[in-house]
Amino acid sequence: MTKKRVGVVLSGCGVQDGAEIHEATLTLYFLDRAGAQAVCMAPDMVQHHVINHLNGTVSDEVRNVLVESARIARGKIQDLATVQAEQLDALILPGGFGVAKNLSNLAFGDAAVQVHPALRHLLKEMHQAHKPIGAICISPALLSAALAGEGLLLTIGQDAETATGIEAAGNRHQESGAVDIVVDPHHKVVTTAAYMCASGIGEAGAGIEKLVQQILVWC
Amino acid sequence: MTKKRVGVVLSGCGVQDGAEIHEATLTLYFLDRAGAQAVCMAPDMVQHHVINHLNGTVSDEVRNVLVESARIARGKIQDLATVQAEQLDALILPGGFGVAKNLSNLAFGDAAVQVHPALRHLLKEMHQAHKPIGAICISPALLSAALAGEGLLLTIGQDAETATGIEAAGNRHQESGAVDIVVDPHHKVVTTAAYMCASGIGEAGAGIEKLVQQILVWC
Repeated sequence: MTKKRVGVVLSGCGVQDGAEIHEATLTLYFLDRAGAQAVCMAPDMVQHHVINHLNGTVSDEVRNVLVESARIARGKIQDLATVQAEQLDALILPGGFGVAKNLSNLAFGDAAVQVHPALRHLLKEMHQAHKPIGAICISPALLSAALAGEGLLLTIGQDAETATGIEAAGNRHQESGAVDIVVDPHHKVVTTAAYMCASGIGEAGAGIEKLVQQILVWC
Repeated sequence: MTKKRVGVVLSGCGVQDGAEIHEATLTLYFLDRAGAQAVCMAPDMVQHHVINHLNGTVSDEVRNVLVESARIARGKIQDLATVQAEQLDALILPGGFGVAKNLSNLAFGDAAVQVHPALRHLLKEMHQAHKPIGAICISPALLSAALAGEGLLLTIGQDAETATGIEAAGNRHQESGAVDIVVDPHHKVVTTAAYMCASGIGEAGAGIEKLVQQILVWC
């Protein structure tokens, strides 16, 4: 049997300025354990900034999102701009501030949410093809912006401000706890809050494990 | 009941020049899921070098082992030099080339293997206190050098050259597959080959899960 090909969108390497490493790694782990093939991708662009994760200060370094994401992917990664929906059976977006700083402008509080054009295009293609999409942590807010007005049922945990933004974009928000998933069977969309409210990696992993299982049920 | 405190020694962030991200993250995941507290640590020193994980070239960037390790630890990490064995119930070393380039000189083929002095001291303290030690991937070779002549039973998978080095240091090597652990109950040492021979993150995780379970049985 051919392995299911599940895209995993990375946004750097580190919670403060890139992909959340635990969420990304556990996504890859649960996919591989279930016999699916992860197809890692990231945009070839300069990171919004680099944060020293020891003391929280902004560094003057310049790093590239694709190059840093390759650390999580152990080098097996492709430029997001080269990926089409027809190559994938499903798509998962782990979280981290990279989602809100590199893949979108969510972190900056602009009323008009902008999503990286190639990612926005891929998400629309996936949705139109009725292929499953999973979004973790802050990624459901990006998904809501990319698929505004579609009436998707999403969770961001219990962050009222982000939930309001999701509703304003014409989607629906459901509160959830750290180990829960929220499933929208009509749109084949599943979301989990992970480090939006998890107290530790065990809780984050519990939600991500269920999310991956749901994605593969739909594949 | 007080949580067991298990030290996790990181060596950067990325398989080619630091800690192997999957091995480190899965160690933290299985510890947390089992109710143990991970105590992340890394040396405060400049990395041997920085490798672009997308194309394998050496970069001219300068990065610090403790600062980059903080990405995996989400900022909750301490300087290895400040940690004493009495603060820990056990110690685990994930792999990655950082173990062989930053925590030791294993990668450079010198006949005399040098281990970072603070780590060597901590490993000797742990061993003398008869506290459990787990080593993943290439880390058993470092452990062998730090505790030379002790007759530890270790595995590095199926790498004949590294196995010879372990035997030459007065320890014993046992071949193993990717999902196996090798247990030395006398010395309370457990090792697993992980990405020394794993075909993917699922296999690496299977060995690491068993290793963490064995560590906690001894705690």
